[in-house]
Amino acid sequence: MKIPDALTGAIRQAQSVLLVAHVSPDGDALGSSLALARALRGMGKSVSILDKDAVPRIYRFLPGWEAVSAELPDVSGGEPDALVLLDCGELERTGFKSLPGRVKLVVDHHLTERSYGDVRWVLPTVSSTGEMVYNLIRALGAEIDAKTALCLYTAIFTDTGGFRYSSSTPSSFRAAADLVELGVKPWSITENVYESISPARMRLMGMAINGIRFHDDVAVIVVTHDMYRETGTTDEDTENFANLARSIQGVEVAVFIRQTGPESFKVSMRSKGRVNVAAIAETIRGGGHHNAAGGKMDGTLAEVEERIVVALKNARRDSQS
Amino acid sequence: MKIPDALTGAIRQAQSVLLVAHVSPDGDALGSSLALARALRGMGKSVSILDKDAVPRIYRFLPGWEAVSAELPDVSGGEPDALVLLDCGELERTGFKSLPGRVKLVVDHHLTERSYGDVRWVLPTVSSTGEMVYNLIRALGAEIDAKTALCLYTAIFTDTGGFRYSSSTPSSFRAAADLVELGVKPWSITENVYESISPARMRLMGMAINGIRFHDDVAVIVVTHDMYRETGTTDEDTENFANLARSIQGVEVAVFIRQTGPESFKVSMRSKGRVNVAAIAETIRGGGHHNAAGGKMDGTLAEVEERIVVALKNARRDSQS
Repeated sequence: MKIPDALTGAIRQAQSVLLVAHVSPDGDALGSSLALARALRGMGKSVSILDKDAVPRIYRFLPGWEAVSAELPDVSGGEPDALVLLDCGELERTGFKSLPGRVKLVVDHHLTERSYGDVRWVLPTVSSTGEMVYNLIRALGAEIDAKTALCLYTAIFTDTGGFRYSSSTPSSFRAAADLVELGVKPWSITENVYESISPARMRLMGMAINGIRFHDDVAVIVVTHDMYRETGTTDEDTENFANLARSIQGVEVAVFIRQTGPESFKVSMRSKGRVNVAAIAETIRGGGHHNAAGGKMDGTLAEVEERIVVALKNARRDSQS
Repeated sequence: MKIPDALTGAIRQAQSVLLVAHVSPDGDALGSSLALARALRGMGKSVSILDKDAVPRIYRFLPGWEAVSAELPDVSGGEPDALVLLDCGELERTGFKSLPGRVKLVVDHHLTERSYGDVRWVLPTVSSTGEMVYNLIRALGAEIDAKTALCLYTAIFTDTGGFRYSSSTPSSFRAAADLVELGVKPWSITENVYESISPARMRLMGMAINGIRFHDDVAVIVVTHDMYRETGTTDEDTENFANLARSIQGVEVAVFIRQTGPESFKVSMRSKGRVNVAAIAETIRGGGHHNAAGGKMDGTLAEVEERIVVALKNARRDSQS
């Protein structure tokens, strides 16, 4: 992995570094930030980590998560020498209007057209920002202890869907091999990320599965306010429900309808690949990618379900004609 | 990975080879058998694959699965030059009383005390028999095409729980990296193994989740004949139900009780590590490992559930005293 000299040079020179990842941080955003912070501190630098949103519960096993701040650091004594945007390539994704830093660096694996930053290291074919940060730390010659390895592994593991998505490349597997050698216990990360379902969330899941409805090869899974009340859950407990419905044999598109108000709903769509759900999301105040998109709809649940199913049918008829 | 010369020598010399894996074949048993068969055929050998039980539906994407036979081959013209037991180390696990083969070889990663076979290559610290077969094929200098790679990857992938269990070692990740380079598409295997849940199985899952009962940190999940009837499922649709219950926060042991007759049940236990369920399995006509074991119990469902929960409590009280 070729790393720009300007990037390693700027980081080496900086005494104070501010790391910032995107809003709604995921395992890659947090794992990359925490790993780079540990490595840079090991090099004697002063490092702050900033994220607009709180660390989700399931990532609070990552060493150092408590130090992730939602508040811009006090820069009355001067800007940090370097700002590093991690797992995002533009200011908007950080949720801040501006960020301090004498030199502004970007380390990201998302494809963006933006030009924010003095040095941009953006590799859209790499599995995760975590894999890039792993190579960056090695290039800097910094130490990777077991805690840093844990953060990097979690970043790669979660962004490849636990080595299940097509982003599971040879180099991501080789990085995982190295990190396990450095002390990572794969099962403990699995346990934290995938095997810590609360009993209430499990009840909600059972209830939602029982209510799945099929319209040809479209599966609709629904969560209402009544279901939250009955199980003692919140919308944070619905992660992966759309994927669950998509995992059914013969299902091409899964639609997850989640109540947000008396007659308002969030709609998430997951496609197995043959249907472009982003096009439909645009018609319901939303957006996304070919295989994963969503938006908002108003009306009764029955109305919303019928409209989205009809929209999916029409979109496919149009694309076939 | 050191491979016994006697093993590679015996395989090289054999013109006809019989491969046999264990009853209730899993992804490792089937992937290893099909991969080794392809590689040996590529070397010009005549190969048969034998398994007492049918290939489960979810593994019918593996190239060549149709050729797995449940019937002993006709040996009126002479025994095969070599018999290779794969993913098992003793005759009993194959379900056959005797097996033909001038030389009898064992390739397995399970710890057994048995001494069946002329050459035994048994490595209990390796992730999977698939990883051993990968190294064996390379040592033999045979070709690994994309189809062979797919079989090997599936073997490693399924036996490590999709690279989630502690058996996910550096060498298993490096083997995966090599196999992806040889043409494996990780997502397509995920889709086949984990994202092809039948609608009926999904209904059974929802029903079983709704019925989960908690006894302190023991979760009990049940499937009855009535539930099979109501959903149109069979016991083949209950795979992973025990793991599902174990994935609940705060659960140390999951017990999966599955009806097999009017008053008879199969009981599977999954531990997160703190409780040795193998010891309890021995008291109910069963066996297994520290974290995964099972057996059989008779009585009404309520009786069976109470007895197993009490047995778990007693075993833990004893181990603490």
